[in-house]
Amino acid sequence: MNGGVFIKTLVVVGHPQIEDSSTQQFLKVAADLPQVTWHPLTTFDLSVANEQKLIGQADRIVLQFPLYWYSAPAILKNWLDLVLTRHFAYPEAMGSLVDKELGIAVSLGSPARHFTAGASENVSISQLMVPFQALAHKLQMTFLPTFVVDQFGYQTDEQKAKLLISYQQYLTQKRLDHFDDQTNWLTAKLTELMATVSDDRREQLALILEQIKSNQSTLEDLQMNLKLIHDMEE
Amino acid sequence: MNGGVFIKTLVVVGHPQIEDSSTQQFLKVAADLPQVTWHPLTTFDLSVANEQKLIGQADRIVLQFPLYWYSAPAILKNWLDLVLTRHFAYPEAMGSLVDKELGIAVSLGSPARHFTAGASENVSISQLMVPFQALAHKLQMTFLPTFVVDQFGYQTDEQKAKLLISYQQYLTQKRLDHFDDQTNWLTAKLTELMATVSDDRREQLALILEQIKSNQSTLEDLQMNLKLIHDMEE
Repeated sequence: MNGGVFIKTLVVVGHPQIEDSSTQQFLKVAADLPQVTWHPLTTFDLSVANEQKLIGQADRIVLQFPLYWYSAPAILKNWLDLVLTRHFAYPEAMGSLVDKELGIAVSLGSPARHFTAGASENVSISQLMVPFQALAHKLQMTFLPTFVVDQFGYQTDEQKAKLLISYQQYLTQKRLDHFDDQTNWLTAKLTELMATVSDDRREQLALILEQIKSNQSTLEDLQMNLKLIHDMEE
Repeated sequence: MNGGVFIKTLVVVGHPQIEDSSTQQFLKVAADLPQVTWHPLTTFDLSVANEQKLIGQADRIVLQFPLYWYSAPAILKNWLDLVLTRHFAYPEAMGSLVDKELGIAVSLGSPARHFTAGASENVSISQLMVPFQALAHKLQMTFLPTFVVDQFGYQTDEQKAKLLISYQQYLTQKRLDHFDDQTNWLTAKLTELMATVSDDRREQLALILEQIKSNQSTLEDLQMNLKLIHDMEE
């Protein structure tokens, strides 16, 4: 497997009725990837040692939940309260989360466009995520941009298809904000796919792959030229 | 009792080990007032109807907890998740919390001065309270300034005495930001106290009370004069 392109991720799912949630069931199928550990919380009674071991095995921790009263549901908060003991988590003690990434995948019951100053919620998702950002800061983790699932139940099939890809990227792509990594991620994904499809499909995919790689080398040339021009001007 | 000065308050205490917390035990003694219902949460398993009844009886709801990973502990979040059902809470449904006040009494394990941009926590208490402010906004409640208990264990006896008074005010004083109400609150408190003390003590308190009332009427004169000057200038 492309160890250089993908990252190991623990998805901690905090939802009081995971089985009844069409959003969570969709995301579960999307997260069925070799690099991803899907970890639904079903009880308030946890084995702290087991949970800490799961954290230890991951590069990226994604806390996934529906927004309940502007924060995580109690079952997810309980996980944080019990598992992140000072000894385990504080950088001046074991510092077990230092240099890992912290992501939030939050699903909304009301439209995302309502979450902005002046709209009906009058607060942004970024503002609501500040306690998690503070947690990442304290534990010397990298805080990722929040992944928002906007009213899944109202999404079209096309929107859901896009959601699937962007969610898989959120879970497994190294350096989420880098275009190169995004291209590498898509290339690796397509290569994986080629092994599983029929011969004529494989030919189609090979052509797409060729195109993406060619685009990338064109882009690299452009970037090189831009850099030369920039350097000459200084 | 002075119905016009005091307000009926429900204090919902979310602390995993209330009995072991010297902060919570101190606040419990301070909250032992006829207008205050002290309601410690001891289980995740709640009778929603009972909890909703308690809310119905109060004018002010104070959520009280130690800051755990920059938010309320799971036991308090669980209370919000279960008790504030849409039907009960949403203004377009029963709207059971409309026009009530929402206060937060939060105790800190690290110094309050660390909670500011550029300091070690790099985030303010106000920023961390935004999810609760959003809750108050949604339910058409008045959000009160947060009451912060700054590292109780390190406080001197004098600091604790001040904490007791300001906490009692936070729980029971009408219109927290009004000077008149603060004076009325203190006057009523002293009058209460006079009934319980010895004769010579009572004389002392009567003098103090006289002084406060006289200060207040001086202040009212000053305010009237200021208003007259202001009106003439316009």
